[in-house]
Amino acid sequence: MPLQYVIGVDLGGTNLKVGAVSTKGEVLSSAEMPSDVKDGRPALLKKILNAIEETRHKIKGKRLSGIGLGVPGIIAPETGTVIQSPNLTGWVNFNIKNALADKLAWPLYIENDANAFALGEGWVGAAAGIRNFCCLTLGTGVGGGIVLNGNLWHGVDGYAGEVGHVVVEPDGVPCACGSWGCLERYVSASALVRMAREGKDDKSAAPLLKSCGGVDGLSAKAIAELARQGDLFCIGLFMRLARYLGIGMAGVINLLNIEMLVIGGGLSKASDLFLASAREEMLKRSFKVPGHGVKVVPAKLGDNGGIIGAAYVALKGIGAI
Amino acid sequence: MPLQYVIGVDLGGTNLKVGAVSTKGEVLSSAEMPSDVKDGRPALLKKILNAIEETRHKIKGKRLSGIGLGVPGIIAPETGTVIQSPNLTGWVNFNIKNALADKLAWPLYIENDANAFALGEGWVGAAAGIRNFCCLTLGTGVGGGIVLNGNLWHGVDGYAGEVGHVVVEPDGVPCACGSWGCLERYVSASALVRMAREGKDDKSAAPLLKSCGGVDGLSAKAIAELARQGDLFCIGLFMRLARYLGIGMAGVINLLNIEMLVIGGGLSKASDLFLASAREEMLKRSFKVPGHGVKVVPAKLGDNGGIIGAAYVALKGIGAI
Repeated sequence: MPLQYVIGVDLGGTNLKVGAVSTKGEVLSSAEMPSDVKDGRPALLKKILNAIEETRHKIKGKRLSGIGLGVPGIIAPETGTVIQSPNLTGWVNFNIKNALADKLAWPLYIENDANAFALGEGWVGAAAGIRNFCCLTLGTGVGGGIVLNGNLWHGVDGYAGEVGHVVVEPDGVPCACGSWGCLERYVSASALVRMAREGKDDKSAAPLLKSCGGVDGLSAKAIAELARQGDLFCIGLFMRLARYLGIGMAGVINLLNIEMLVIGGGLSKASDLFLASAREEMLKRSFKVPGHGVKVVPAKLGDNGGIIGAAYVALKGIGAI
Repeated sequence: MPLQYVIGVDLGGTNLKVGAVSTKGEVLSSAEMPSDVKDGRPALLKKILNAIEETRHKIKGKRLSGIGLGVPGIIAPETGTVIQSPNLTGWVNFNIKNALADKLAWPLYIENDANAFALGEGWVGAAAGIRNFCCLTLGTGVGGGIVLNGNLWHGVDGYAGEVGHVVVEPDGVPCACGSWGCLERYVSASALVRMAREGKDDKSAAPLLKSCGGVDGLSAKAIAELARQGDLFCIGLFMRLARYLGIGMAGVINLLNIEMLVIGGGLSKASDLFLASAREEMLKRSFKVPGHGVKVVPAKLGDNGGIIGAAYVALKGIGAI
């Protein structure tokens, strides 16, 4: 019997990634394309099906056993219906599982993207072998996935793990979720840009503004580049981010007393600029034993984390691991 | 064979409560005495053993099967060693389980007091039949216990559930735990008194100060009494407490998406003064489905919660439930 593999699909608001993944977590083949969400749901569903088909044709001598799909939104764990999604606005109350499964000859499993990412890191990434950890993805927003006793903690409605929406500043910046001062408003790529904009009149912001061609050109990437060159304004922005991240991490530790915090997402590429300081802040604010015991590490799987995580969901679903 | 019962011991920094509890959670007999922690460890251990013996003599025609002990501190779940305790300072690194078990002819089980309280409420209290909930005890400080899938979540070192030490005000009041702005600093009996003291120069504080005979006589009880009579200063203190409690509860909900929040502890006797407002604040700050889905209720077992919870730990330990 040929070796089996699964296909992991990482559906994002900007990009769609699809990859063939072995039962050991190796990416055998992958492809990335714009998700073009604005073209509407039918077009995107078709694009997903085509990408799966193309991936399947690239793999020879192995048997496809299942498909996993990571979706940027809250998914009802039992049914596969999208309950809430800021990036897929027309998809709420849509049963993505049924819509795709009807057109696929393989078992299909759906998971929230941040949860899938956490499962991937726990499988063959930074948290491999760790049974109790929390994964934070710092990107445009902040996602989270909590693994307890080796299993993802979904909560009773599939909403658990929203670390990005724990309040760290009670009268802080309004959040799209309806609250104020959520962690996401202070430790995401968009938060960095907002904080830079807020400080634009400070004399020390001049080098950053110059390099970005003004306020409208501000980006997390440019802020990270200048911080690495020693720009004090940009370093200050990362220190502010680190402080809030540390406060949020301390809350998770004091509540859950887990073994590891994994920091992923686009912003984790700049983790050298904030992770050590965030850990220091966390240690000041957590109990000694759980605080010093917890490992704080960057994610390992990088851009492939989403497809590897989605693949894990499929392999777990079919009982292959 | 006679019906069995267990003895639950609730060791507090101020009082020691001991009770005989049936396998159905009925309190058959109970006694309360000062714990006199200052008299030292050997004296308190002897007092516990005596109280157990006296309780045992009061119960006729039933067989004692085990003993459960709730301790105000972090307990290593495997060994029964006290890892940390603000109220039992001389007990850290002391193996309370071995010290007592040697002198008892029945199996002994130890648990953190807030955890035991949560288990009791989940057994025959406000959370009976609920498999996913969090119990907060608002007293001098704030304790917490998290139950997931019907089991207490201890965390890897026994520290989990420290809801009182989630930060709700990043530059807030310093906390004994080493952090600043912990929930405990805003939603405990001592927090109410502190907030009253901070506002003492406000003209509207005059009735409270008069009824307490000045700043040194301030108490949570007096503040609650005046709030019930419509005193605006005291109502304001409870509104401030409610706001922070709501922020803390929203954090728990967004992280864990559980079914119920149970509010116990001495201050819960005044829950009519703050719980509805706290829930409102929580709803503003949590996702709609988990926020509206979660029940927020006062604890049911009152002063017996500690012994009933400790009894549950014993019954679970011996496999009787």
